[in-house]
Amino acid sequence: MFESAELGHQVDKKDYEREVPKLREALLEAQMRVLEKAEFPLILLSGGVDGGGKGEVVNLLLEWMDPRHIQVHAMGEPTDEELSRPPMWRFWRALPPKGKTGVFFGSWYTAPIVDRVYGRIHGSELTRSLASISRFERMLVDEGALVVKFWMHLSKKAQKQRFKELEKSPGTAWRVSEQDWERHRRYDRFREVSEHALRETSTSEAPWNVVEAADRRYRNLTVGRLLLQMLQSRLTTRHKTQVRGAPPPPPPIDARDVIEELDLSRSLSDAQYDKRLPKAQGALNAHSRRKRFREKHACIVVFEGPDAAGKGGAIRRVTAALDARRYDVVPIAAPTEEERAQPYLWRFWRAAPRRGHFTLFDRSWYGRVLVERVEGFAAEADWMRAYREIVDFEDSLVSAGVVVVKFWLQIDKKEQLRRFREREKTGYKRFKITRDDWRNREKWMAYERAVCDMVDRTSTSPAPWHLIEANDKKWARVRIVQTIADSIEAALRR
Amino acid sequence: MFESAELGHQVDKKDYEREVPKLREALLEAQMRVLEKAEFPLILLSGGVDGGGKGEVVNLLLEWMDPRHIQVHAMGEPTDEELSRPPMWRFWRALPPKGKTGVFFGSWYTAPIVDRVYGRIHGSELTRSLASISRFERMLVDEGALVVKFWMHLSKKAQKQRFKELEKSPGTAWRVSEQDWERHRRYDRFREVSEHALRETSTSEAPWNVVEAADRRYRNLTVGRLLLQMLQSRLTTRHKTQVRGAPPPPPPIDARDVIEELDLSRSLSDAQYDKRLPKAQGALNAHSRRKRFREKHACIVVFEGPDAAGKGGAIRRVTAALDARRYDVVPIAAPTEEERAQPYLWRFWRAAPRRGHFTLFDRSWYGRVLVERVEGFAAEADWMRAYREIVDFEDSLVSAGVVVVKFWLQIDKKEQLRRFREREKTGYKRFKITRDDWRNREKWMAYERAVCDMVDRTSTSPAPWHLIEANDKKWARVRIVQTIADSIEAALRR
Repeated sequence: MFESAELGHQVDKKDYEREVPKLREALLEAQMRVLEKAEFPLILLSGGVDGGGKGEVVNLLLEWMDPRHIQVHAMGEPTDEELSRPPMWRFWRALPPKGKTGVFFGSWYTAPIVDRVYGRIHGSELTRSLASISRFERMLVDEGALVVKFWMHLSKKAQKQRFKELEKSPGTAWRVSEQDWERHRRYDRFREVSEHALRETSTSEAPWNVVEAADRRYRNLTVGRLLLQMLQSRLTTRHKTQVRGAPPPPPPIDARDVIEELDLSRSLSDAQYDKRLPKAQGALNAHSRRKRFREKHACIVVFEGPDAAGKGGAIRRVTAALDARRYDVVPIAAPTEEERAQPYLWRFWRAAPRRGHFTLFDRSWYGRVLVERVEGFAAEADWMRAYREIVDFEDSLVSAGVVVVKFWLQIDKKEQLRRFREREKTGYKRFKITRDDWRNREKWMAYERAVCDMVDRTSTSPAPWHLIEANDKKWARVRIVQTIADSIEAALRR
Repeated sequence: MFESAELGHQVDKKDYEREVPKLREALLEAQMRVLEKAEFPLILLSGGVDGGGKGEVVNLLLEWMDPRHIQVHAMGEPTDEELSRPPMWRFWRALPPKGKTGVFFGSWYTAPIVDRVYGRIHGSELTRSLASISRFERMLVDEGALVVKFWMHLSKKAQKQRFKELEKSPGTAWRVSEQDWERHRRYDRFREVSEHALRETSTSEAPWNVVEAADRRYRNLTVGRLLLQMLQSRLTTRHKTQVRGAPPPPPPIDARDVIEELDLSRSLSDAQYDKRLPKAQGALNAHSRRKRFREKHACIVVFEGPDAAGKGGAIRRVTAALDARRYDVVPIAAPTEEERAQPYLWRFWRAAPRRGHFTLFDRSWYGRVLVERVEGFAAEADWMRAYREIVDFEDSLVSAGVVVVKFWLQIDKKEQLRRFREREKTGYKRFKITRDDWRNREKWMAYERAVCDMVDRTSTSPAPWHLIEANDKKWARVRIVQTIADSIEAALRR
């Protein structure tokens, strides 16, 4: 894997000075076309051995291209804010929008490789991380991104030379730290683990490019030319995801499904409600204040359901039990322009709570497999792959300690009609009912199919769906508050 | 994930008897169209809980469809022959050719799930297996296969009922074993691990279909209808793989590459050769007879190189050191019709050596990224993804203890010409030189680029490329025999 990058590649000064202006011009032009089209972001990873010039290369690209459209992320140790969220949060936050370039040096590869070299994780854990990185990058590509990965390589000897050379001059000596030498002593192990990581994550959609970094001119020209080639190729090919798998399944033969099975007559009397709701709220409040919850966990609650199912009212009963400084309610409507320029899950990642906090989503990422599916806003290929991406997303949350609680509030058509009419009558509730709401009623069955498929494909033991009988608001509210309290308690016991 | 499969779905006898004839007719027709087109195989996995009727469903499909075109594989405990080869070998061997159907009950999922339930492997090892299963299935789909996966589900209660019901009648009591009851006691753990496996391997290209199996009529109709839908959808969509990643990289700026760097003047005198070859052969022979090699290892040697590079002669020097009962030489030419009806790697898997044995490939799976790339026999999307598939293939070999040694024999154009002329003169060697050989010479540079890309992408530490200076046959042969001996020795020391 590193053979070609240990040959002592070189470019002499004259050739370099002749080539660079042409390359710069072509790169700038390609960058402008990417920007004008605004159809895809460029995500560039600059990785490699210490002394290989991961950072120098980035500086060079900033010099060669228009730096106003490039965001550089030198991901070192995570900040406090980052540490208090799931590990992938900081990378999601930094993703460039369509048309722009995001350069990462120090990326999602750093932690797994370094942790493995220092024996902090097992080999099979490394493989697990690499598999989830591959899926993450595949998702980026499926969402349209151009992912370009460079690995700056130096042989052990070349690395030593580079460090010595830097140390000689007072202007550069500061760039070689004790840590660099310490890592140099572990060169062989670094090489082995990096090779493993590159091997497992060189996919056809996002392959690694290993670049010999001993000669700066060779390295710079090579990176520039490869990048140019990839930009040009992406600008001229039509990118389209394709369904290669099964179509959505037909409804069950006997027409029974998880929604039909719900007993919507379930209800509570006022007296029961007045007794049970405060009790459930008390439990939720107590759990949310526990030290272990504040230090190790967070909670995401998803509310989905047809119009007028009572999501808003339920959310208010939940927040009533929480400290106002520790929750956010995020209502999800059609994506904004900023959000449309990002991978689908971006806006949900952005709202991931920090430790000890709650995010309540009034509608959620499930829009893709519900409204976008039923209304045809997303292509079949896109919503079909979303199931898998959502399961991965929730897995990352759960493995970072986030308690994920998902509610589907079910009412029947008759009850919905009653509530619509009531809203029309009640002045201050009228704004809540629109022509869309009436139209959605006609698609009731299509939504029911979509809900059942969603439950089949995304109700997992780490993040199960809770189907709530919501014809009676009191019943629904108590069950919701109680389920959140129970889910947090279960996580705390684990 | 199992919610919809615990509802007590049922189909009554009258409905069943009305639906089945229509379904059978449609299934038969779809099967015939698959057979006539002969463009893709159907790979059907029937998995699920004990008592769910994995086998009954398969019998039913055999009854409903034309059984002559369906091969059924009840993969239980591996046979001796299978045990002596890498674990995936038996599944590769059983893959159906294009147009046909292969049904697996007991599949590549069985071992990881059972091993995890019984605590024989760690959670992260399970994840690693599942990731490699996902890649395997993606490869099958990329190669054109329709992969349909059914999971027959029973709740714990329904499983108990099923067993009791079977035990009641003397005609079926034998079908419930002590093992079934033992596993029933572990139901919850099985459910948990299976859910994890299904979650990690439900991809958009090969999703799982969970089917409630409590009512046989419902189960049968559901499986039949889902299968029909998938066949019909696959018959009407055009299947095409697509490049979504980077184009092949341009040659290095300074025109230096691993091939150019070889010192082809390297040679041995006759005296050196006569001394060193027998010594290397002796070492190889000794290692190949060691108990540890015979019991835990096998060896695959790949010979690639331009025409007249001396592959055949080198192979004979290797086999001279081996026990004739313990090696196979497999010459690779254009694939046969049988081989073209299978995934690309099928014919190489088929030749995987059993423990203690050697397979020497005179040309190999690298044909896809060499001749097929250069001559345009394979589409760019196909040979670009082959790098990744090859790395996975060799990883499965190496992790099963197979020592993989890969040689590229390099000669220069002048030496090749000299050998061609010599062959033309020597009667008994004339058959070895054809018009193709002369034509290939013209593509010398294109081949060199292909070789360098191949080394960059597939020379890994578990299975590195050895580039052999082969202008002098003596030098090449000694290096080859010695390298095989050294590689085996290194594996034995590990």
